[in-house]
Amino acid sequence: RINGDRLWASLMELAQIGATQKGGVKRLALTDLDKQGRDLVVSWAKQAGLTVTIDQIGNVFMRRAGKNPALPPIMSGSHIDTQPTGGKFDGNYGVLAALEVVRTLNDHNIETEAPIEVAFWTNEEGSRFVPVMMGSGVFCGAFSLETAYAAKDTEGKTVGDELERIGYKGTEVPGQHPIGAYFETHIEQGPVLEDADKVIGVVPGVLGLSWYDCIVTGMEAHAGPTPMALRKDALQISTKIMQEVVNIGNRYPPYGRGTVGMVQVFPNSRNVIPGEVKFSIDLRNVSSELLDTMHNEILAFVDKTSKDSGLSISVERVSYYPPCPFHPDCVNAVREATATLGYSTMDVVSGAGHDAIYTARLAPSGMIFVPCKDGISHNEIEDAKSEHLEAGCNVLLHAMLGRAG
Amino acid sequence: RINGDRLWASLMELAQIGATQKGGVKRLALTDLDKQGRDLVVSWAKQAGLTVTIDQIGNVFMRRAGKNPALPPIMSGSHIDTQPTGGKFDGNYGVLAALEVVRTLNDHNIETEAPIEVAFWTNEEGSRFVPVMMGSGVFCGAFSLETAYAAKDTEGKTVGDELERIGYKGTEVPGQHPIGAYFETHIEQGPVLEDADKVIGVVPGVLGLSWYDCIVTGMEAHAGPTPMALRKDALQISTKIMQEVVNIGNRYPPYGRGTVGMVQVFPNSRNVIPGEVKFSIDLRNVSSELLDTMHNEILAFVDKTSKDSGLSISVERVSYYPPCPFHPDCVNAVREATATLGYSTMDVVSGAGHDAIYTARLAPSGMIFVPCKDGISHNEIEDAKSEHLEAGCNVLLHAMLGRAG
Ligand SMILES: NC(=O)NCCC(=O)O
Ligand SMILES: NC(=O)NCCC(=O)O
Repeated sequence: RINGDRLWASLMELAQIGATQKGGVKRLALTDLDKQGRDLVVSWAKQAGLTVTIDQIGNVFMRRAGKNPALPPIMSGSHIDTQPTGGKFDGNYGVLAALEVVRTLNDHNIETEAPIEVAFWTNEEGSRFVPVMMGSGVFCGAFSLETAYAAKDTEGKTVGDELERIGYKGTEVPGQHPIGAYFETHIEQGPVLEDADKVIGVVPGVLGLSWYDCIVTGMEAHAGPTPMALRKDALQISTKIMQEVVNIGNRYPPYGRGTVGMVQVFPNSRNVIPGEVKFSIDLRNVSSELLDTMHNEILAFVDKTSKDSGLSISVERVSYYPPCPFHPDCVNAVREATATLGYSTMDVVSGAGHDAIYTARLAPSGMIFVPCKDGISHNEIEDAKSEHLEAGCNVLLHAMLGRAG
Repeated sequence: RINGDRLWASLMELAQIGATQKGGVKRLALTDLDKQGRDLVVSWAKQAGLTVTIDQIGNVFMRRAGKNPALPPIMSGSHIDTQPTGGKFDGNYGVLAALEVVRTLNDHNIETEAPIEVAFWTNEEGSRFVPVMMGSGVFCGAFSLETAYAAKDTEGKTVGDELERIGYKGTEVPGQHPIGAYFETHIEQGPVLEDADKVIGVVPGVLGLSWYDCIVTGMEAHAGPTPMALRKDALQISTKIMQEVVNIGNRYPPYGRGTVGMVQVFPNSRNVIPGEVKFSIDLRNVSSELLDTMHNEILAFVDKTSKDSGLSISVERVSYYPPCPFHPDCVNAVREATATLGYSTMDVVSGAGHDAIYTARLAPSGMIFVPCKDGISHNEIEDAKSEHLEAGCNVLLHAMLGRAG
């Protein structure tokens, strides 16, 4: 069993770096605060006797030797960067749970066959620099190191320069680091476990995700003198599409998701009929077939709406992550560890992307979810119970031991 | 007949002060540019022999003496402040048409019984300082001079200080200036005249107007892990109300108007279900009864939507201008002048508020509309034909002569 109090204490100590007034954390990727957070985790790793390697995109791997150095390491980790109004647990829990596994092995003088590694990946959140899951994305070859280096924040600072500045531009070529298997513990970021009153979520996979930008172009006109029949109201036409996005999500349960999260209205003035509306569409589902069906339905609806209204409507896919089923061996390792430890459990497909979807392209991967309060994350009020975090970490310990031997 | 070329030349000269690259004008109320515009108009008035009076809210009255100084003046005017991305004609036309009437009377040595006055009112647009139609509003007692003086722009500068700074804080008490009748020429700011191919709009009155702020409060949550059934999506509920606003406008033709022009989504992030949406509602109609019915219907719909969805929804009326029928004598004066001059014509109820709705509280008032290109105003591409502007000014001349004797 791991030491739940020690895990909690480390989480709270790390959360002080970038702590916000409302109890959250603001520690954006590659800022001075990120450097402080990284330095603290690395110092803990060194205290635990781990060997630290940094790759060219700033991913950090902290290794506990195994009996057989030829075996690829059994790895666990996540990220320590946060949203601008982020919480204490998203990402940080996954990194510190992996560290707690190592500390527990040290306490008990357990030597594993394969090495054990704790990892944290650069810029998972994508708040300061896009794309999201940058470090793991470069690691698995989803996009190039050059693309990542060139990414700019709103002030024009690049990932390449900022990595150099905070001293985390390593020398190892990303992806050259061997991985035997990868496990990631994470707060669920949704309400399913809490709703069902279960402690451990076994994660069979991650929903596929399609992101779109939709622009409806009408005709800006004065709200008073323009009769209803002569209007080309871009917002009214947009509301039809916004509703269809949700209808499509509802049409393919239980994993269909349809969300409009971002809306910009032009000119956005009280007495002007909107001439242009730009909004985002987020569609998700568990299989490529279902996600393709949803994709086709939204395109067809936009097409029909444009014809019916006479307004020009563009919709462009801006991101796509295919559904990611995790490796049966890893999923079973988590399921069995949970059963051995006697925690209440259910399967929870991850609705959100995680670094594990990229490691899954290179090595068997799996995830362990624990409940978070009201399903809330990406929010300063994000919260989780110490006993749940401890349970998730115990499951991680046993799953990793099973793989590492 | 007035001199159409001279009118056009003056419009173009005034439009150079604050001219924008796209051919529009940016001359916000009480800025240095507004001062330059005011100085130019006042200099033209003095060249035309007019006597200038300025009141404490910066309204400017420019008087041509009549045979009978005891008679209250027949007044015409509008405003010369513009929207941030405004055009050359909105407001400016009304002021320079009145000046052109005076110049024409001078050309022909016509002496009227009653004095003739050209007026421009402070801050009609309300872009820099709210409320809109500030100068005429203070003049008719709709709100106090103190309220107006205290109004601040986004930099914290007040109307009182800015009036003083540009030298247009006069001494006359607002509202003490007598008015025998008031006429205002204006571009229609809508598509009705152009659509019907008519030159002169006789304006029987102005639509009443109710403005509301609506706030829908749901629950912010991650778009991926949150199943459709567990969401409180503030945007989806908002779209129902946004559509009903337009339905209500359509339900009470021909003058019903329902517009949502302004929308703010929180936190406005692609993968976050909106937790709060704030939007404006603009309802208009020609009678208080119809506007009250529309008011009751939107409140009832919001109430029902809140109950059905379980989300909290607030809707607050933030402005109300009752419908304003113009005085039959003034409406007839415009109608008869138009007939005499032989212009094609139709009645066009004004959908937008104008300074004339405030003068109408103190003196018989009326308006004359001319077409503007595509019905567009509050836009740099605002445009109008010289012959239409000339026609409107001829109608103004004859309507004023009829009243002034
Ligand atoms: N975990 C997480 O928030 N990932 C970002 C991409 C997504 O929206 O799923
Ligand atoms: N003319 C004009 O734009 N007035 C502002 C108030 C309104 O929206 O009617």
